[in-house]
Amino acid sequence: MITGKNLIGNTPSAKGNIRYKTFNPQLNIENQTTFVEATSAEIEMACVIAEKAFQKYKTYSGKQKAAFLNSIADEILALDDELIKAYCSETGLPEGRAKGERGRTVGQLRSFAELVAEGSWVEATIDTAQPERAPMPKSDIRKLMLPIGPVVVFGASNFPLAYSTAGGDTAAALASGCPVIVKSHPMHAGTGELVASAIIKAAEKTGMPNGVFSNINSSGIEVGAQLVKRPEIKAVGFTGSIKGGRALYDLAAQRKEPIPVFAEMGSINPIIILPQAVKNRGEALAKTYASSITLGTGQFCTNPGLVLGIKGDALTRFIQNLSNEIVKIEPSCMLHPNISSAYEFNKQKVISQPDLSLVADYKSNVKDNYAKQAIATVEGEIFLENPTLHQEVFGPFSMVVQCESTEQLEQIISQLEGQLTGTIIAEDGEASNYTEVISALQNRVGRIIYNGVPTGVEVCPSMVHGGPYPASTDSRFTAVGIDSVKRWVRPFSYQDWPNELLPNELKNENPLGILRRVNGEQTKI
Amino acid sequence: MITGKNLIGNTPSAKGNIRYKTFNPQLNIENQTTFVEATSAEIEMACVIAEKAFQKYKTYSGKQKAAFLNSIADEILALDDELIKAYCSETGLPEGRAKGERGRTVGQLRSFAELVAEGSWVEATIDTAQPERAPMPKSDIRKLMLPIGPVVVFGASNFPLAYSTAGGDTAAALASGCPVIVKSHPMHAGTGELVASAIIKAAEKTGMPNGVFSNINSSGIEVGAQLVKRPEIKAVGFTGSIKGGRALYDLAAQRKEPIPVFAEMGSINPIIILPQAVKNRGEALAKTYASSITLGTGQFCTNPGLVLGIKGDALTRFIQNLSNEIVKIEPSCMLHPNISSAYEFNKQKVISQPDLSLVADYKSNVKDNYAKQAIATVEGEIFLENPTLHQEVFGPFSMVVQCESTEQLEQIISQLEGQLTGTIIAEDGEASNYTEVISALQNRVGRIIYNGVPTGVEVCPSMVHGGPYPASTDSRFTAVGIDSVKRWVRPFSYQDWPNELLPNELKNENPLGILRRVNGEQTKI
Repeated sequence: MITGKNLIGNTPSAKGNIRYKTFNPQLNIENQTTFVEATSAEIEMACVIAEKAFQKYKTYSGKQKAAFLNSIADEILALDDELIKAYCSETGLPEGRAKGERGRTVGQLRSFAELVAEGSWVEATIDTAQPERAPMPKSDIRKLMLPIGPVVVFGASNFPLAYSTAGGDTAAALASGCPVIVKSHPMHAGTGELVASAIIKAAEKTGMPNGVFSNINSSGIEVGAQLVKRPEIKAVGFTGSIKGGRALYDLAAQRKEPIPVFAEMGSINPIIILPQAVKNRGEALAKTYASSITLGTGQFCTNPGLVLGIKGDALTRFIQNLSNEIVKIEPSCMLHPNISSAYEFNKQKVISQPDLSLVADYKSNVKDNYAKQAIATVEGEIFLENPTLHQEVFGPFSMVVQCESTEQLEQIISQLEGQLTGTIIAEDGEASNYTEVISALQNRVGRIIYNGVPTGVEVCPSMVHGGPYPASTDSRFTAVGIDSVKRWVRPFSYQDWPNELLPNELKNENPLGILRRVNGEQTKI
Repeated sequence: MITGKNLIGNTPSAKGNIRYKTFNPQLNIENQTTFVEATSAEIEMACVIAEKAFQKYKTYSGKQKAAFLNSIADEILALDDELIKAYCSETGLPEGRAKGERGRTVGQLRSFAELVAEGSWVEATIDTAQPERAPMPKSDIRKLMLPIGPVVVFGASNFPLAYSTAGGDTAAALASGCPVIVKSHPMHAGTGELVASAIIKAAEKTGMPNGVFSNINSSGIEVGAQLVKRPEIKAVGFTGSIKGGRALYDLAAQRKEPIPVFAEMGSINPIIILPQAVKNRGEALAKTYASSITLGTGQFCTNPGLVLGIKGDALTRFIQNLSNEIVKIEPSCMLHPNISSAYEFNKQKVISQPDLSLVADYKSNVKDNYAKQAIATVEGEIFLENPTLHQEVFGPFSMVVQCESTEQLEQIISQLEGQLTGTIIAEDGEASNYTEVISALQNRVGRIIYNGVPTGVEVCPSMVHGGPYPASTDSRFTAVGIDSVKRWVRPFSYQDWPNELLPNELKNENPLGILRRVNGEQTKI
């Protein structure tokens, strides 16, 4: 049952005076439950018990943490219809999406459980002593990854399950050995509370210390700012807008002890359609992209907001086809009235720029909170000169830029801000004539796609979801896939440490049987 | 020959008006050469050509980069006596130290050459396609580490070779594929210029692009600030004071595109002597530590500036022995008059604090720029209450804190700022009774040593040189050892990319024969 209370560790708490409700965008009405924003005292308590829990939790074995993560997955599934209903009522998204996202969330939790149960992820590295070495004997040194401490996670409006309460950031942080405090997203506070209660149930069932997880309600920005400034907090995960992510980054950088902020923020995910491809299969591409642009009402961070091509008849036809296709698609509901009004505002801001053509615009009336998809087009030179055109319009909108030449295409790519993804659409053998374009694109993105769409982020070890700023605040880490665990750890060395006092990962006899780098060789012995 | 000029890529340049000389602290006179600080135009040029060089250099094979790094090592050795003389004249350090540090520098360059020639360091990860997977087919995704772009390196006063011009930061960045601009340390500008000229010679001999390396002179802070603010620069390496490192960190965090700063800063490297150890071998420990505290005139970032023990007769005797031993050691020269006056100033500041006893103080007169070693002692409670006592005194000074109890010892450790190292001195079996002390120490340091001294940082894969702030600005990376290359790279994914366009590291046939993670398995196939 959704109570509207915070969870300060295992304890429900609602001492504050600021109250808010979530909104059902499909019905265009508020949902019932009243949520109570956390007070400063509640925030402090969550941080203090997280720090205390860390001292125990950091010593738990991979198998213990795996049991906890798997139990969270079980408890989320046990919420069954109650969770799916809350999700749909707070997002306007259909049941199929809710179930799909739940599957992804549970899958992520189980894949991190598998990672830590196996144990090799700690990158154990051993260099044994050389007492006879001249002129100086060499010490025995052994390294592994340690959790950095309590982590604050800010959930994403557009992924109430997979990138919120028990989403990728939380799963990775708990796997690494870090307690987590979630700053619940106000748009899906009920969904968040249900998932948080599942985490607490799992923590109790598997004997985790109180404080290993807390869920903090908040309708504004003050609670999040307080969390990021607390000395117990050692890192922050965030998925959302550039403005929000940068504000947290700045707060974290200004602390006496600065801490890392992994903010996965905006992206317009450029698609480069090379001339042969647009000529030979512009029609099919238009269909594919009309569908990718409108997927999830355009509310994906990998939504293709920018299409780049070389000016000419084939590109003109593609633009026409894309326009025709996109208005055929039935409009769908956005996550919240604030998001649909922001979409309309940002779209208007872009399409009111000079020398830009609005080539597709869904004309009919739509229900409240539904988004009207649109396509604009502009010449390369105009795009280059006007930074407003480079900004993300979060929703089913895309802009086709008609470049004068390959050189201009390369120049435009080089001047783009950092992006999560870039896509090359090419015919067989065509891309090898565009190595400089591809090199420029590589500099600006975290993932490069060939003849595909950027929407749909596979959860696997080779995935990079991140990219140069402002796609993320730290391009050196991915937010998706098991390597995202690396955000929450630091390397730590033991020098000449007695075998019996070493953690199991580093003992001579390798009791966990993990893969280790011993004197330069990878070995399980 | 030392000219006093900057090296803007391959071109010597000296267009500025600000001039300065280095200083010979042993002779207490200025050295001859006049150095010319770089102008804004020279700084800009170095950055612009570095960015341009990056586009080529990032595509060079591991073997090409290895040839460059090995050639740098060769050219440094070819400088022979000229380099050793410049080093000694600018540091006051003895020839043996100069040669030892040169050996370490050359060794570091060659170990990075070996790393990139072999090639597995890029962490190649491949997840092959599953076109039949339901409900959605799985794409082929492949990941590797890419260099992030031009890097600025600020050299360290206390390691003119191993942590300056061609030191660990530079070697790691060049190995990763990033061009480097060194902001030369004003105290050893001549040594720096000689090494820079060796790097440029090596770059020319091995066909590296102009701009892959530049050496920028500067006597103050403005040049460094300009470098860190340039948009071409993507990361910063720094070794030095907390004040200097934090100032650069703040500048980098305030950029429109924030960039990482890896600053390795101050540390007092606590030594915890457990009761049985101090009782059974306090005398030997006093000798060992007198020597470690004065090693290199105390000018090591791993210098043991703090010794913690439990109050009692044995600790009192240890303090007496340490005091006796340390004044027996002949004083030695510091790096520069500014460093010796800072030592005296900071030492006076600490020993003038209330309720502190100065138990050893070298009484005789010493030559100009020579340091008088000293030992102070204080009660645990006094130490806890006075943050001035927690500050680093860079030089041959250490403070022994006499704790009331194990609980107070743990409390003191928990309240320390982040440290590079922590050391436990214990008798056989003793440490296992102090798990909470060790756990607290682990939270505060990057490397933990058993029955040894923190001075002497082995260059090997398992070494962590770094630690929680302010030991370093980013505890998630080491500044020493081959894994320090990870500071300068970011992960990058290729999705459904044609085999022939993939980098060699990710091609199906594994042409480089490197170790890769393919569908979850480590393999060279």
